[in-house]
Amino acid sequence: MPEGEPAVPRSVPIALGPHSTPLLERAITAGGGTVTELGAARALVWDGDPAGFPQRLPDGIEWVQLFSAGVEEWFDTDVFRNHPGVVFTSAAGAFARSVAEHALMMLLSGVRYLPEHVLARSWRQREFFPHIGTLRGATVAVVGAGGIGRELIALLHPFGARVIAVNRSGTPVSLPGVVETVPAHRLPEVWPRTDHVVVAAPATPETRHLVGKAELAHLKPTSWVVNVARGSLIDTDALVQALRDGVIGGAALDVTDPEPLPDGHPLWDLPNAVVTPHDSNPPHLRNAAFADRVRENVARFVSGRDPLARIDVVAGY
Amino acid sequence: MPEGEPAVPRSVPIALGPHSTPLLERAITAGGGTVTELGAARALVWDGDPAGFPQRLPDGIEWVQLFSAGVEEWFDTDVFRNHPGVVFTSAAGAFARSVAEHALMMLLSGVRYLPEHVLARSWRQREFFPHIGTLRGATVAVVGAGGIGRELIALLHPFGARVIAVNRSGTPVSLPGVVETVPAHRLPEVWPRTDHVVVAAPATPETRHLVGKAELAHLKPTSWVVNVARGSLIDTDALVQALRDGVIGGAALDVTDPEPLPDGHPLWDLPNAVVTPHDSNPPHLRNAAFADRVRENVARFVSGRDPLARIDVVAGY
Repeated sequence: MPEGEPAVPRSVPIALGPHSTPLLERAITAGGGTVTELGAARALVWDGDPAGFPQRLPDGIEWVQLFSAGVEEWFDTDVFRNHPGVVFTSAAGAFARSVAEHALMMLLSGVRYLPEHVLARSWRQREFFPHIGTLRGATVAVVGAGGIGRELIALLHPFGARVIAVNRSGTPVSLPGVVETVPAHRLPEVWPRTDHVVVAAPATPETRHLVGKAELAHLKPTSWVVNVARGSLIDTDALVQALRDGVIGGAALDVTDPEPLPDGHPLWDLPNAVVTPHDSNPPHLRNAAFADRVRENVARFVSGRDPLARIDVVAGY
Repeated sequence: MPEGEPAVPRSVPIALGPHSTPLLERAITAGGGTVTELGAARALVWDGDPAGFPQRLPDGIEWVQLFSAGVEEWFDTDVFRNHPGVVFTSAAGAFARSVAEHALMMLLSGVRYLPEHVLARSWRQREFFPHIGTLRGATVAVVGAGGIGRELIALLHPFGARVIAVNRSGTPVSLPGVVETVPAHRLPEVWPRTDHVVVAAPATPETRHLVGKAELAHLKPTSWVVNVARGSLIDTDALVQALRDGVIGGAALDVTDPEPLPDGHPLWDLPNAVVTPHDSNPPHLRNAAFADRVRENVARFVSGRDPLARIDVVAGY
């Protein structure tokens, strides 16, 4: 940094724990920080679980960035109570993009008949022609419009897909490409009206077997069902039957029930079923996404702006 | 249409030839036209080749929409010469989106290791984890920034890819996500700097074997090469060798050399090669895209705006 330029902020000392990684060191530097010891730091980036977290942070610490997106286990500890003056941020939202990218990939591959192409051993153009679909003008129900659902909608829109967003409240999801937002209790209206379904809702007692025999029966012989949420949201036996009978076009599952899917399960052999073994967000992509979030939040801290994903320690999320 | 509202334009009579299809009739109506006989029409939508085209159009015809994107064969006829006062439009650009969607699908599927997933018969999560890539932050060279290339760039951007656009002149392609435009003669600089390559350039003597052994050697073991242009742009033997040796991550080809790819060709069996039999734009999607173009151009004609893809009968394209 050139000397004598008063407008340029001084580099901010930030600690990194429980271990230091080159990726996170670079992220802190890129955000405008300098990696330093905890005792001399104004902030702490914590790339670990609650177990090893310092009992009592030095008084100089103003902000702590945690690694996880969900912070339930942190609320089971005294960490927040012990540090009432410290701002804590989670990684909420940081990991959604990789899962959304995976979901888009699986849906688009299915719609364009890629699995059958991968299995082909000869030039079957005329046979394949009628099976090639497009997302252009297709209606896609995105069930669950949280972080993953919203990132997915942003990816779907440029393809010209029309999105029916489904969330608990029915509060309109105002993103380009969303033609309608439907509350979860009106989900039965959605099945006959959509071309494809992506399941991205949390696993709760209410969402168990959200897609079952009756729901599948309302879809089209060209419909693809994608699950990037939890296996329990789909009735696996009903899905296998629908795939066998051609009730729907296909299914692409990053999560299964049971999970891991055992060897010999019919989903491994059905040509219109694609299973990815819960690898939509593998460790190296998680680390890269966390580093991106660290860079962004360090930059915000350095310039005095509000950080992303501040934890509300009173409300508990 | 309600009576007595002077601002609403009257429906415009438009003829359809050589045959009528419900899809095109709907498109004309949706654009604000009424399908009528040629003698009473102000415009003609021509869904055929030059052979059956009327020798002499009625004087009332002001505009003709042709089906093809390339209109070379129309210049071999007297059609344009015989009708100097008529505006002719082609379908140029209308078919690019389906090919771009296909290219994005093939690239993203490769990057996310889908082909190996399709072939798997067991839950191989830890084995697959390191192979899952992302388009986020990846550099993608789009060789050929015409209709398909530009549509592809628009699809790549939301994933967070950084695009190096390659065109003949090097005139900057100013689309979001393009970090650099490189003229074709400086293509050798691109190979070592890109993560992936999509070939979407016309087949000319200059572009023959544009991707060969030397070019592939500069790519990465994780690079995917996608071809949606013509088979001749890639040296097939060099590609097969690179795929066998792990010089690149994989290749996805909608076009091949030779084409059709014969049974028993090594590309059918390599797990990191995906062949789609030139089906990125099958007939039903072409028809749907043409209908979209007809609707748009009818709407423009009805409201007196310039049509898309007007043919310059003097310049010859």
